[in-house]
Amino acid sequence: MKIIAKVRSPFREKFGIPRQSGLAELPAEIIFEPEYRVREAFRGLEGYSHLWLLWEFSEAVREEWSPTVRPPRLGGNVRMGVFATRSPFRPNPIGLSSVRLERIDYDRPDSPVLIVSGADILDGTPVYDIKPYLAYTDSHPNAEGGFALQQRKGTLQVDFPKQLLEKVPQELREGLTDVLAQDPRPQYQHSPERVYMMSFADFEVGFSVDGGVLKVRNILFPTKGDNNDEQ
Amino acid sequence: MKIIAKVRSPFREKFGIPRQSGLAELPAEIIFEPEYRVREAFRGLEGYSHLWLLWEFSEAVREEWSPTVRPPRLGGNVRMGVFATRSPFRPNPIGLSSVRLERIDYDRPDSPVLIVSGADILDGTPVYDIKPYLAYTDSHPNAEGGFALQQRKGTLQVDFPKQLLEKVPQELREGLTDVLAQDPRPQYQHSPERVYMMSFADFEVGFSVDGGVLKVRNILFPTKGDNNDEQ
Repeated sequence: MKIIAKVRSPFREKFGIPRQSGLAELPAEIIFEPEYRVREAFRGLEGYSHLWLLWEFSEAVREEWSPTVRPPRLGGNVRMGVFATRSPFRPNPIGLSSVRLERIDYDRPDSPVLIVSGADILDGTPVYDIKPYLAYTDSHPNAEGGFALQQRKGTLQVDFPKQLLEKVPQELREGLTDVLAQDPRPQYQHSPERVYMMSFADFEVGFSVDGGVLKVRNILFPTKGDNNDEQ
Repeated sequence: MKIIAKVRSPFREKFGIPRQSGLAELPAEIIFEPEYRVREAFRGLEGYSHLWLLWEFSEAVREEWSPTVRPPRLGGNVRMGVFATRSPFRPNPIGLSSVRLERIDYDRPDSPVLIVSGADILDGTPVYDIKPYLAYTDSHPNAEGGFALQQRKGTLQVDFPKQLLEKVPQELREGLTDVLAQDPRPQYQHSPERVYMMSFADFEVGFSVDGGVLKVRNILFPTKGDNNDEQ
């Protein structure tokens, strides 16, 4: 299986990544390996509003597979069959995400680059395939199942103090707020005093959660010398 | 990439396979490799009405990739970027199909077996992954694109003489009619005199097309001695 591209996204660690795509409208870029930077390979793609990404759960590659997993969204203590989940820990660690195609950039040195939104994917993730989303065969709005997972969507109210929000680049503010509203805490750690730190884009977000309210405490940029300067 | 299962379907050759899944409601079985015949790996799957199959375009594995392809549904003479199509001839020959989960059979020697419908997949196709379909993240009924492909759906009227239809097993009659209505002819061969033969399940279907009407001419079962007897 060849790696054809890599994802460039604000998710710099697994902590905080929405459990499914499309729940936060964050921008990401699909940057192709040099062999696939061929303009005509994308001819006609601009006619599609949505794409499928097939990618590698590169942080979840294992030699062995387990028949059951414990989905975080079910509290981490219910065992489900691996084929009844989208867990990364599966016999073949392939992820599947639908994303919105915002535009195709043909003017960069690494072009063509796909600018997408709604990707739930770690920065640097290898991509195996890009396919157009075909509503007439891919869309089943009345498909049954997944309700236990769905109902937790956007459960927290986010208190994002103005002076902290203003430190966040404009195009990431709404998406970051969506990510936080989905409650990125591990399901088994619920202490109102605890301040969680999450890496996001080029900064760190500190927050705490009390009841149904998540409060942002810090937005910290690494200082110079970390080899990871604020841009 | 490990093969976890194989598809058992009525499509015994590429000719006649609908260009996308879900266009004909034909039954198929997903038969797992012995290592994955583990009942608990499927726990909770029965709560889902639809599944994703990730599978190998096993008849389309190539060393080289081509930036453009000519989709049969566009008449075979328009070149599209490979990433703007669902063509099997792509850098990684992975297919993606949503199917309806009819039931899970736990009572066979090769159980668990998934009984699905709407698969557009060749008999014997290797499967890499099974995922539940999650409408809240996978369904985008208003996604744009693919109209040129969609408009050809069900373009032919099918004239299926009663005495021939009765030779077809009951559970395949409607699905076969759907397959024929989608006009399985190669796009570049349109002669009203020609009788096309298509392998389907355990028999051969002969048909001709004149204008907008497809007429079934023969339903032929292989004779004994072909090592492929009528069951």
